[in-house]
Amino acid sequence: MEKLTVIKVGGKIVEEEATLRQLLKDFSLLEGYKVLVHGGGRSATKIAAQLGIESQMVDGRRITDAETLKVVTMVYGGLVNKNIVAGLQALGVNALGLTGADMNLIRSEKRPVTTVDYGFVGDVKDVNADLLVSLIKQGIVPVLAPLTHDKEGNMLNTNADTIAGETAKALASHFDVTLVFCFEKKGVLKDEKDDDSVISCIDRAMFKQYVADGIIQGGMIPKLENSYQAIDAGVKQVIITKADAIRPGQGTCVQ
Amino acid sequence: MEKLTVIKVGGKIVEEEATLRQLLKDFSLLEGYKVLVHGGGRSATKIAAQLGIESQMVDGRRITDAETLKVVTMVYGGLVNKNIVAGLQALGVNALGLTGADMNLIRSEKRPVTTVDYGFVGDVKDVNADLLVSLIKQGIVPVLAPLTHDKEGNMLNTNADTIAGETAKALASHFDVTLVFCFEKKGVLKDEKDDDSVISCIDRAMFKQYVADGIIQGGMIPKLENSYQAIDAGVKQVIITKADAIRPGQGTCVQ
Repeated sequence: MEKLTVIKVGGKIVEEEATLRQLLKDFSLLEGYKVLVHGGGRSATKIAAQLGIESQMVDGRRITDAETLKVVTMVYGGLVNKNIVAGLQALGVNALGLTGADMNLIRSEKRPVTTVDYGFVGDVKDVNADLLVSLIKQGIVPVLAPLTHDKEGNMLNTNADTIAGETAKALASHFDVTLVFCFEKKGVLKDEKDDDSVISCIDRAMFKQYVADGIIQGGMIPKLENSYQAIDAGVKQVIITKADAIRPGQGTCVQ
Repeated sequence: MEKLTVIKVGGKIVEEEATLRQLLKDFSLLEGYKVLVHGGGRSATKIAAQLGIESQMVDGRRITDAETLKVVTMVYGGLVNKNIVAGLQALGVNALGLTGADMNLIRSEKRPVTTVDYGFVGDVKDVNADLLVSLIKQGIVPVLAPLTHDKEGNMLNTNADTIAGETAKALASHFDVTLVFCFEKKGVLKDEKDDDSVISCIDRAMFKQYVADGIIQGGMIPKLENSYQAIDAGVKQVIITKADAIRPGQGTCVQ
């Protein structure tokens, strides 16, 4: 199968002019088929504040009321997405900005209210990859905003890591998929205080051992568990790295 | 050739819940291939005002400074476009929201400064219809926001009538295209004060005569001149009507 890379970058990278330019340049140089998934939370928080809407977060997730949904639809689907698309087009990458509503790409269901009411937040149910695959094979590079829809007329706010993971899984039967999660460190670290102590490769046995030894802990555990879920669903490998190190051979490779 | 209808609706229709629902229902019932082009100026003005940005208009065109460009990119490309796309998906229409930057669909050039500096406003240079045609033939219904790009990394604000006209022209070599411009009247009127005095069909000779007789005047003259330009470029017919009358056989047919 042909290779495809799904790169997920957080809002911070795509919302600052200098880091965005560098990312788009690095991304444009990546060989093979590719997909970019972006966040945009900082811009959403800033514009919401300017519009007099207070951003409420629970465990790092945005509570999305009706007014906040309008803001994230504008900011993720419009401002951030189209800025990336125009930037990639200038670099000769034939980008196409998409939300989950476009071509019914990602259908989700509004998250049920439990102890927390997240509002208009969607949990992914289906990824309809067929048209996406056809576009990718025609040379189109999809740029996905963290928004889905319920197929009943409503947009829903959806975590960008989830969008990236679910898209990678859906594409795994068509391509040899590498999923790259960018975060603030160069990779999974052996020593949290030493930025250069990147573990270059982790398999399941090593992961278990590192957790047992207390070397891998906190938020890195669910990140790696999610990576193994993607691998179980057919994704070839997951790379955890920094946005300025998305070229092959850098970061931590999860296999 | 197979038939395709390009419908252009102004902001007022798509920004109010009730008129939007009706439009999407009517649009979903249109047979054959179709494209929807929308405005969004009222929402842009409202959100700009909430963000403390004053909207400046010259001859009905928005002066687009850097901050206003961000607003229209958010509002047209995000809020209005995705709301329409999600609404159409709920009606079983496989909509895909696009700006001119997506797939490099419409490249424009920043309008030169003459007596007026319109700012980040783009005059259309190329429409790359090939990928669009391929998508349409796969059952996709494009929903176009009034935004283009300069292929140098910048989004540009572009009049929705222009987007509709240029897209219709570009599709005319692939389909038998009908271009529908919706405005506030049922069609071109014989008597401006009588909403029911719609002229059902106008050819060039009649147009000349109506203008000579003073029956057609003011803003309707350039609207009809633009319609004939589209026809000269291969568009089969242009219909001028009200948004609630987009089904065949209503409004004024310009041939």
